[in-house]
Amino acid sequence: MKSDIEIAQETAICPITTIAEKIGLTFDDIELFGKYKAKIPLEVLEKFDKKAEGKLVLVTSINPTPAGEGKSTVTVGLADAFARQGGSVMVALREPSLGPVMGIKGGAAGGGYAQVLPMEDINLHFTGDIHAITTANNAIAAFLDNSLHQGNPLQIDPRRILWKRVLDLNDRALRHVTVGLGGPLNGIPREDGFDITVASEVMAVLCLATSIEDLKGRLGKIVIAQTYDRKPVTIDDLGVAGAIAMLLKDALKPNLVQTIEGTPALIHGGPFANIAHGCNSVLATKTALKLADIVITEAGFGADLGGEKFLDIKTRQLGKTPDAVVIVATLRALKMHGGVDKKELTAENVEAVKTGFANLKRHIENMQAFGLPVVVAINQFASDTEAEISTLTALVEALGVEISLTQVFAKGGEGGLALAKKLSAMLQEKTDFRYLYELETSVSDKINKIVTEIYGGSKVNFSVKAKRQLREISENGWDNLPVCMAKTQYSFSDQASLLAAPEGFEITVRELIPKIGAGFIVALLGDIMTMPGLPKAPAALKMDVSNDGKISGLF
Amino acid sequence: MKSDIEIAQETAICPITTIAEKIGLTFDDIELFGKYKAKIPLEVLEKFDKKAEGKLVLVTSINPTPAGEGKSTVTVGLADAFARQGGSVMVALREPSLGPVMGIKGGAAGGGYAQVLPMEDINLHFTGDIHAITTANNAIAAFLDNSLHQGNPLQIDPRRILWKRVLDLNDRALRHVTVGLGGPLNGIPREDGFDITVASEVMAVLCLATSIEDLKGRLGKIVIAQTYDRKPVTIDDLGVAGAIAMLLKDALKPNLVQTIEGTPALIHGGPFANIAHGCNSVLATKTALKLADIVITEAGFGADLGGEKFLDIKTRQLGKTPDAVVIVATLRALKMHGGVDKKELTAENVEAVKTGFANLKRHIENMQAFGLPVVVAINQFASDTEAEISTLTALVEALGVEISLTQVFAKGGEGGLALAKKLSAMLQEKTDFRYLYELETSVSDKINKIVTEIYGGSKVNFSVKAKRQLREISENGWDNLPVCMAKTQYSFSDQASLLAAPEGFEITVRELIPKIGAGFIVALLGDIMTMPGLPKAPAALKMDVSNDGKISGLF
Repeated sequence: MKSDIEIAQETAICPITTIAEKIGLTFDDIELFGKYKAKIPLEVLEKFDKKAEGKLVLVTSINPTPAGEGKSTVTVGLADAFARQGGSVMVALREPSLGPVMGIKGGAAGGGYAQVLPMEDINLHFTGDIHAITTANNAIAAFLDNSLHQGNPLQIDPRRILWKRVLDLNDRALRHVTVGLGGPLNGIPREDGFDITVASEVMAVLCLATSIEDLKGRLGKIVIAQTYDRKPVTIDDLGVAGAIAMLLKDALKPNLVQTIEGTPALIHGGPFANIAHGCNSVLATKTALKLADIVITEAGFGADLGGEKFLDIKTRQLGKTPDAVVIVATLRALKMHGGVDKKELTAENVEAVKTGFANLKRHIENMQAFGLPVVVAINQFASDTEAEISTLTALVEALGVEISLTQVFAKGGEGGLALAKKLSAMLQEKTDFRYLYELETSVSDKINKIVTEIYGGSKVNFSVKAKRQLREISENGWDNLPVCMAKTQYSFSDQASLLAAPEGFEITVRELIPKIGAGFIVALLGDIMTMPGLPKAPAALKMDVSNDGKISGLF
Repeated sequence: MKSDIEIAQETAICPITTIAEKIGLTFDDIELFGKYKAKIPLEVLEKFDKKAEGKLVLVTSINPTPAGEGKSTVTVGLADAFARQGGSVMVALREPSLGPVMGIKGGAAGGGYAQVLPMEDINLHFTGDIHAITTANNAIAAFLDNSLHQGNPLQIDPRRILWKRVLDLNDRALRHVTVGLGGPLNGIPREDGFDITVASEVMAVLCLATSIEDLKGRLGKIVIAQTYDRKPVTIDDLGVAGAIAMLLKDALKPNLVQTIEGTPALIHGGPFANIAHGCNSVLATKTALKLADIVITEAGFGADLGGEKFLDIKTRQLGKTPDAVVIVATLRALKMHGGVDKKELTAENVEAVKTGFANLKRHIENMQAFGLPVVVAINQFASDTEAEISTLTALVEALGVEISLTQVFAKGGEGGLALAKKLSAMLQEKTDFRYLYELETSVSDKINKIVTEIYGGSKVNFSVKAKRQLREISENGWDNLPVCMAKTQYSFSDQASLLAAPEGFEITVRELIPKIGAGFIVALLGDIMTMPGLPKAPAALKMDVSNDGKISGLF
């Protein structure tokens, strides 16, 4: 089979103006970025005031495994399948981060015949949104260090600075640094560190903001440090929320591109799914809901982590909850949850499917607990056997849940028609959504509820530090914020090796990080990597550009 | 008078497609970035193969003073004046760096009624070129640190790493840092530092490259470190020149915008004028020369520093030398060169004009020594008196040189008509350009020639370090590269306080830095600041954006 970039480069891509027309946008409505990308200004939505919002399909998955699930691929292929049925459909996705592209992944915008185009641009600088976020984040850091240097009028304790600098690169040497060295003209020496840009609170803020005004308000509330007497210091205290919002005014506009089959796609924002909430922007999803009758979107990692955060965090800002949930799984991945080694995955193993099904089952039940109708999508591989498929089908259907095989990687929208058909019927039904928790409960109660009701754990322990932080959260009046869980994506528990559906485990909250601009409290359940490293042979070694501008080595 | 941003926002800006039409470019020829910016793909020039290149006017100035000279303003206004005469004219300028914009300057794209639009975009993220350069520069650093971490196969000496990271911000706390802390999983600890992006060699490379192929070749040759046995390590040794060129493929395309009077303007590239050569890109100037009959461009700082480097470095890549040189001065600045304090500048002082004229005179003679016809442009201020103006006019005319008063800040192109008329006549003449030095002479001879013939110094001293580096340069076969002088912009000498036209001074070369990708050897004549700091009250404090996206506080 051809590589993703070969397929992408062979596709006859439409001018983005043609794609815009499909959703009722004229040349004047959009801001072109070259011929195949455009930004949609926020005020364009006023044109569609009268139109009812479309139906929302959330694509999530089982706990990811090294076998690969293909959640983005199914999301894109499903949109193309709906489009083949003649519906007005859009897909809303996260923007890939350049760091992993240059490091390991080599590219991420779906795969095979279910990709988003132009894949080279989307994987590289795209429309510059992530660069704007990097700049905004680091400008905040520069203003903070300048305030320290210029007499420290805010009485910031240099040992208690929460704000880190960021780059959209994998660069382990920047995880722990000291800055401000070189004598009195060069700032105040202190320990510091860099995260990857997608882990920045500015990214989370951009993805949850509903207007420039809201963006500015959220930025102002970001807590960047503590004073010597442990009071929070915010960006409003620095006086630069307006300037930072100014740096982000264009990045706030959703980006319009297209799938390989010409379905309009919005790719906008890409917060980490561990340290942040892991979904594309509220504004992109809102825009898609106004412009199309059916919107397919995805959440990061598995349904326990990204799915829960989509429902408990993002939908509160979006003002809209999903009309149906697709849980993506592969037989290969279920077999890994059933204890099979990655090297043995091509051999038939019905027993492992049965064991691994426990993982899928808990995700199904969790999503149903939110009051949402669920369909399982099996992203088919050539090595899947009839026996494995029929075993899984029986197990899923025994729960009263529909299941559909998809082949979108190899066949594009055609390979997702069965799934789209099942969903079309489900979307006629009214849902009865209920949040997992009310905002008015305490942060510790919220965490308890997530751990016991979603993860299946028996108990939550708080470290000494976390206990102190719970008190600070209460004192600062932040108890009514939702919780953003930061744990391993590989397991329901906080231990990556506990696959399938572990029970009786306890979870330890090591630390709580207030992200007051984003509007949530991060609960750290382990060492979360916020600045990846490069492998021995980075993907970049194979990348090149010819003299006529053609890119190779993105895959 | 209104502020720059008020004037800019009141201007009825044309769609960039209309501006493109003026220079023979269709909608399909260009890549739009919103409605008022576009990139010009390199292959578009093939359409103009048959057309002769236009005439080139270089705008430079006396040694800058705190009084302000307004070189960019005159450059823009002069282009508008030519346009008013009915000529086919373009202006080619550098892109402003965001760091100074947020720090002190608040904005830089000409001023008053001689500005480039959209000034907000140009001063902020523009088309993302500088962000691409930041990313490319820092990706190189990440690959380098990764190579150190992964067994150091290139035997890089971590104490002799030349490559620094960059941000397009003013951030003094990043000047001297240590990276790679935190234990064996987090890289190799070493000293490091950040420059501002415009000081990156990647910026210089982008501005001197003539094609993607040339860009890639130059990137590969960049020396980033030395091995334990003091051999140069290049980006080609890391194997990532292709990937880095890929990151820069769009940034290499010149950006089309417009002046306030609708004259087509290319704004592309902005290397520091001290540590680098300080001119907009070769490709932008080449493109303008193909598309227009008259091209106005500028060099950084004074004619001794930016002017000399434009002529001895940039024109060798451009394949075209200026047809005329404009030297911009103000009576205020000449009075400062004549010893007047900044607070006393509004008082008439004819004697100070006479004394300060020595600065202008040496710059005139220097430009004439290159075989170029010179005209002096006086950027008029309300406080200039008749007596001062007539004194200066007599002094300049006594040299057989023309002088013209300009009022482009207040009047736009109208205020530059007299200057344009004088230049129109000069552009009919053939020039007899000669380089200051031949490339075949040694680096030390080149430096000697610049110091004695351009600066008016008596002698060059080389530090012990510089002497060793001269030997290394010879051994590495780099002796035939041009020299990029890095000294204070305020004086012909290496001491900022020696104004007017000092004589008999000696100059010390402290250090030589090989910039083999850019293709020059930097000669450091003092402490050159490559990462500015923020002032106590940064310009950003006044910046804001309203809910409908309107920016304020850029001035």
